[in-house]
Amino acid sequence: MDPRFWRARNFPSDMSAKRETVRPAPASLRSVEASKFPVPQHRAKRLGLNPAADPRNRPIGVFDSGIGGLTVLKALAEANPREDFIYLGDTARLPYGTKSAEVILRYSLENAGFLLARGIKMLVIACNTSSAVALDEIAGTTTIPVAGVIEPGARAVSRASRSGKIGVIGTEATIASGAYTRAIKRFRPRAEVFTRACPLLVPLAEEGWTDNEIAERTVAHYLDSLKTSGIEALLLGCTHYPLLRSVFEKVLGAGVKIVDSASATAAAVRERLHALGLARLRGAGRQSFFVTETPERFIRVGRRFLGPQVESAVRIERW
Amino acid sequence: MDPRFWRARNFPSDMSAKRETVRPAPASLRSVEASKFPVPQHRAKRLGLNPAADPRNRPIGVFDSGIGGLTVLKALAEANPREDFIYLGDTARLPYGTKSAEVILRYSLENAGFLLARGIKMLVIACNTSSAVALDEIAGTTTIPVAGVIEPGARAVSRASRSGKIGVIGTEATIASGAYTRAIKRFRPRAEVFTRACPLLVPLAEEGWTDNEIAERTVAHYLDSLKTSGIEALLLGCTHYPLLRSVFEKVLGAGVKIVDSASATAAAVRERLHALGLARLRGAGRQSFFVTETPERFIRVGRRFLGPQVESAVRIERW
Repeated sequence: MDPRFWRARNFPSDMSAKRETVRPAPASLRSVEASKFPVPQHRAKRLGLNPAADPRNRPIGVFDSGIGGLTVLKALAEANPREDFIYLGDTARLPYGTKSAEVILRYSLENAGFLLARGIKMLVIACNTSSAVALDEIAGTTTIPVAGVIEPGARAVSRASRSGKIGVIGTEATIASGAYTRAIKRFRPRAEVFTRACPLLVPLAEEGWTDNEIAERTVAHYLDSLKTSGIEALLLGCTHYPLLRSVFEKVLGAGVKIVDSASATAAAVRERLHALGLARLRGAGRQSFFVTETPERFIRVGRRFLGPQVESAVRIERW
Repeated sequence: MDPRFWRARNFPSDMSAKRETVRPAPASLRSVEASKFPVPQHRAKRLGLNPAADPRNRPIGVFDSGIGGLTVLKALAEANPREDFIYLGDTARLPYGTKSAEVILRYSLENAGFLLARGIKMLVIACNTSSAVALDEIAGTTTIPVAGVIEPGARAVSRASRSGKIGVIGTEATIASGAYTRAIKRFRPRAEVFTRACPLLVPLAEEGWTDNEIAERTVAHYLDSLKTSGIEALLLGCTHYPLLRSVFEKVLGAGVKIVDSASATAAAVRERLHALGLARLRGAGRQSFFVTETPERFIRVGRRFLGPQVESAVRIERW
């Protein structure tokens, strides 16, 4: 996997090489974390040791510009049911998709700082726009592994297309960054990538208009040029778009495979946790939510994305 | 006019009475400012006096959550062509319409503070959402007159309906605040007010989809219940909506008068400037723009709202 996706803990060469070639993690690394705690977790407690000190018990931090990242959290929790997740939605400053790279970077670094201060073992950037713009800079501020959604999504869509004709849709900022196109070309250098910013799809999904005629016409309007380009696979490059999946299917027909980054990212996170010996092996995972706005709208709209477990969220009043 | 709309300079009784009854400004007030400068402006310069010290020459401050307020600025500049305007668009944190009253208030106070520090003679809150939520609090921080768009819009729409059946559309936060309903009831206590939040119309206007079928269907969807309620007048309670005016007309038909707050606010500002002796009597007004984001998108989208004079904007990096 490309080093831009992963920054391994205790793997300093990865940091220096992050903009260069791919370098696999040494096998010895896999047990570094686990070997610090030779006593099994269930025994440690009985022996009076502090299980919270075991890095495997630390939560995974996930941040997003607001609500959409809950689709990524959903996939993460399904693929990693034993893990605890701390989710931060920057609801006071959403959306990021219409903002500039500079502002997105500043906000993303602040979000990451909040989660890193809470002792997380891994950081996942659920927001496509933040992943496209800020992954490298965030990874440069920490030694824990940092994952974005761009690389896993790009890898999955590269595999899904036979001809190499691939469509990518996302926010204005994600498409303008060119991050998906670059990532796809790394996996499949001869791919033909067709991109389209679709600014109205985020408010449509938040309004809950995911199966009416307006949603259908809007999607058809945006996808028209991609469809005539003959794409074989379409990457949903925004956390909100999976809610409109059935509309995409209807508009594009059976000939186009639809890929979203959330499940690919969740699988990659699972793989990496196990490779680093950081996976939690016992217990049922919990999720806790932080927002920068008052939580009412997050809870109301968030249930459309994740389900009824979005019961409460703690507001942080920092920005 | 209701004192919630105006907080007069040098009129302390207005401040203490602001949540109570209407109290007209004393006639003597009208010349307070002018009498401080008995020398006409064109002569003052010749006499070596500093014309910038004349409060009439000071600019009017206008702020908005971002770009939409340019429709208000347009009306203000047309009604007050000799005035200089300083416009601040909080583009790094837009939109306000989906955010909570608490966050909108904090952002609005920060915006007002920036403009007040620039020596403005009057402050206009162009954003409907900010006007609905933050006008009183902002007025409490300054002695210069502060205007919002709610009162002038409410007055205009109250006059436009014979039967008193009035529709109001706006953002989620504007409608939730109930500010328009309260203001209309002050002008016309027996009015029947029907409100509807229309979250998709802001992104539609910013995308430039103001005359296609999707815009028409979306507007029809939102206005359906208002139409069947038999409204006679519709208030466009958001700065973005005037761009969709022709769609509203088409959907509602000739029987419903469409009123927007921008021109009513501009006329009220003009009247008040003259009443206070603060109107600039000579010269051609200029407009300058400040944004909290990089200015590219503001300039690009802003031209749809104001025209080609949106050439440049200065970015302030405060929040």
